[in-house]
Amino acid sequence: MRERVYLDWNATAPLRPEARAAMASAWELVGNPSSVHAEGRQARRVIEDARAEVARAVGAEPRQVVFTSGGTEANVLALVPGSARKGGVPVERLVVSAVEHPSVMAAGRFAPEAVTVLDVDRNGVIDLARLRALLAVGPPALVAVMLANNETGAIQPIADIAHVVHEFGGLLHVDAVQAFGRMDIDIKSLKTDFLSISAHKIGGPKGVGALVIGEDMTGPEPLLRGGGQELSRRAGTENVAGIAGFGAAAKVASEGGGAMAEVARLRQRLEAGLRERNDVIVFSRDVPRLPNTILFGVPGLRAETAVIGFDLEGISVSSGAACSSGKVQPSHVVAAMGYGPELARSAIRLSLGWLTTEKDVDRCLEAWKKLAGTLVKQNDETEVERF
Amino acid sequence: MRERVYLDWNATAPLRPEARAAMASAWELVGNPSSVHAEGRQARRVIEDARAEVARAVGAEPRQVVFTSGGTEANVLALVPGSARKGGVPVERLVVSAVEHPSVMAAGRFAPEAVTVLDVDRNGVIDLARLRALLAVGPPALVAVMLANNETGAIQPIADIAHVVHEFGGLLHVDAVQAFGRMDIDIKSLKTDFLSISAHKIGGPKGVGALVIGEDMTGPEPLLRGGGQELSRRAGTENVAGIAGFGAAAKVASEGGGAMAEVARLRQRLEAGLRERNDVIVFSRDVPRLPNTILFGVPGLRAETAVIGFDLEGISVSSGAACSSGKVQPSHVVAAMGYGPELARSAIRLSLGWLTTEKDVDRCLEAWKKLAGTLVKQNDETEVERF
Repeated sequence: MRERVYLDWNATAPLRPEARAAMASAWELVGNPSSVHAEGRQARRVIEDARAEVARAVGAEPRQVVFTSGGTEANVLALVPGSARKGGVPVERLVVSAVEHPSVMAAGRFAPEAVTVLDVDRNGVIDLARLRALLAVGPPALVAVMLANNETGAIQPIADIAHVVHEFGGLLHVDAVQAFGRMDIDIKSLKTDFLSISAHKIGGPKGVGALVIGEDMTGPEPLLRGGGQELSRRAGTENVAGIAGFGAAAKVASEGGGAMAEVARLRQRLEAGLRERNDVIVFSRDVPRLPNTILFGVPGLRAETAVIGFDLEGISVSSGAACSSGKVQPSHVVAAMGYGPELARSAIRLSLGWLTTEKDVDRCLEAWKKLAGTLVKQNDETEVERF
Repeated sequence: MRERVYLDWNATAPLRPEARAAMASAWELVGNPSSVHAEGRQARRVIEDARAEVARAVGAEPRQVVFTSGGTEANVLALVPGSARKGGVPVERLVVSAVEHPSVMAAGRFAPEAVTVLDVDRNGVIDLARLRALLAVGPPALVAVMLANNETGAIQPIADIAHVVHEFGGLLHVDAVQAFGRMDIDIKSLKTDFLSISAHKIGGPKGVGALVIGEDMTGPEPLLRGGGQELSRRAGTENVAGIAGFGAAAKVASEGGGAMAEVARLRQRLEAGLRERNDVIVFSRDVPRLPNTILFGVPGLRAETAVIGFDLEGISVSSGAACSSGKVQPSHVVAAMGYGPELARSAIRLSLGWLTTEKDVDRCLEAWKKLAGTLVKQNDETEVERF
């Protein structure tokens, strides 16, 4: 049997050996990090060492890092009314871009009537003038714009967005889950107030993430209350081994372990191969994107069938986001970019990582050539385009 | 150097080899359980196998189990207005016993004015007549009473409590985090509507838990929204390895791996040794308790000093709950039982587990004899008792 080709790194990355080693080592520690005895203090030290590594990976101070059970919890924790910068007015409403992850679109603890969705352009990038218009009227807003989109890889101009948001007395939340490990992240350059990251996208374990909180921030109101863990910002016995694995993976990421130059080269080859068909549309192609991501569509293609077809050829790809319990749904990201439902239903995501090889690219293109003829239905339906 | 003696199993238990093996095996799976390809389906299978084991351990069906990041999240998820049994009236208020874990005392998503605290007696057990009186007036309530107390080990008469709660159209939440693996738990005999459990108390990993939800329940309103994981009851990429470890530990627990008969015998010896001093008070001694737990106090003793003293002797014990970020505070449990602040400050918890040996008991008693003389201040202050 041929080896399988994994091209779904944006869904999750393989666990790094460094993370395994750190977790296996943490398993030996019996203590609860909240206990004052020697066993407790050893477990505490593992968490604090990991916190320092995670902080370093995003240019923050350790005290800014709150460990969570993943990117979703980090987003939900941040998305709550009442947070404010020192001396500022607490935010009362939420503005989210139309291409956010479902855990951000769900708006956390904001009431539905306090949420405004901000349109994006054909490339999935938000319009600063529209943002400005939205913020000019009404109370201070928390604005949620992701750093890089999980489906297209499109990168938002976060520092510019932060400038506008702060001009109007708002706060900025950046979901950097997909960007983390795939581009440099520095919370100070981004000028964001909240930043969500997740371990399993960078080769750490699933089920661990962090919210990084700007200095001198009041809030966010805790989501999990009880014990005094995480400086009373997140109660519950810590996932000690998972956090250790996160720290180890963050260290590798800080040191350039994403191998993104090589990934970018392979992505370019893969994308060029796909585009040999004239009807292939690569989304967000005209704007800066993550070096590892391709989201493409073809009129007449059904993504759910294509994903199964690829799977049978031994190649793992995704139809847009994987976070909807295995349900294949038209991509809300592609729809938000103004493409019609047919193209939104056709969107397939190929995402690469540090273990992706030249041969993986060959295998994928070979499979695509084999599948495309039968998968793409020849019909005369034309896409209804919004632009 | 002498080996350390770990007598803080209620804070956290050592990781079982079965859990390690299950987790190491899950590490090999690259897929995201929400992905439809082969890698995704493999990860999904690991979660569903673990769900079946966890369900079996508490006499539930797998579909009743919602995996969370631990006992705290399970409690916070359950503690929300609006849940109802099929055809019932949604609960609007919360009644919590005075000896609940901090994550229950914090009342989840209930407004502070919707919360009533239910007193306990000298042994830490709730009074059914008082509960009845509380429920007789006002809208349907969610009642939160733990199965066994994390500090004293006292076991509540849950089936009787459930009977009263349901008679008044309420719902019952049982925090069984500390009881799990230390006594038999069957959700049908307990007749509870919600049951919280945690992996790390039974030899699974820290950072994983579950809320087990009664059949035909509307609610609880999700805490983490976004992707459709856990039947849309808890969004976020699952902690696959952690859940696998939880399943493996639950299987051992189901099969009697807690070794509680031997633990009970050792506990009895330890308790008898402590009580050789006439001024030692073992809390909740007159009611059924977990077989592994001793909470004792001595007038004039300061728990924080004692814990450090034991630690220097190589013995890990706790002063009441360990979940308050290392802060040593007077036990709210002992205070709720009507003892004065001096005794509440003196409470030391010794908790045993399946690896505890005869020699551990000897070492602990030896240290206690050495320490007690200097730790217990001879003074004439008399305890102010409420009863």
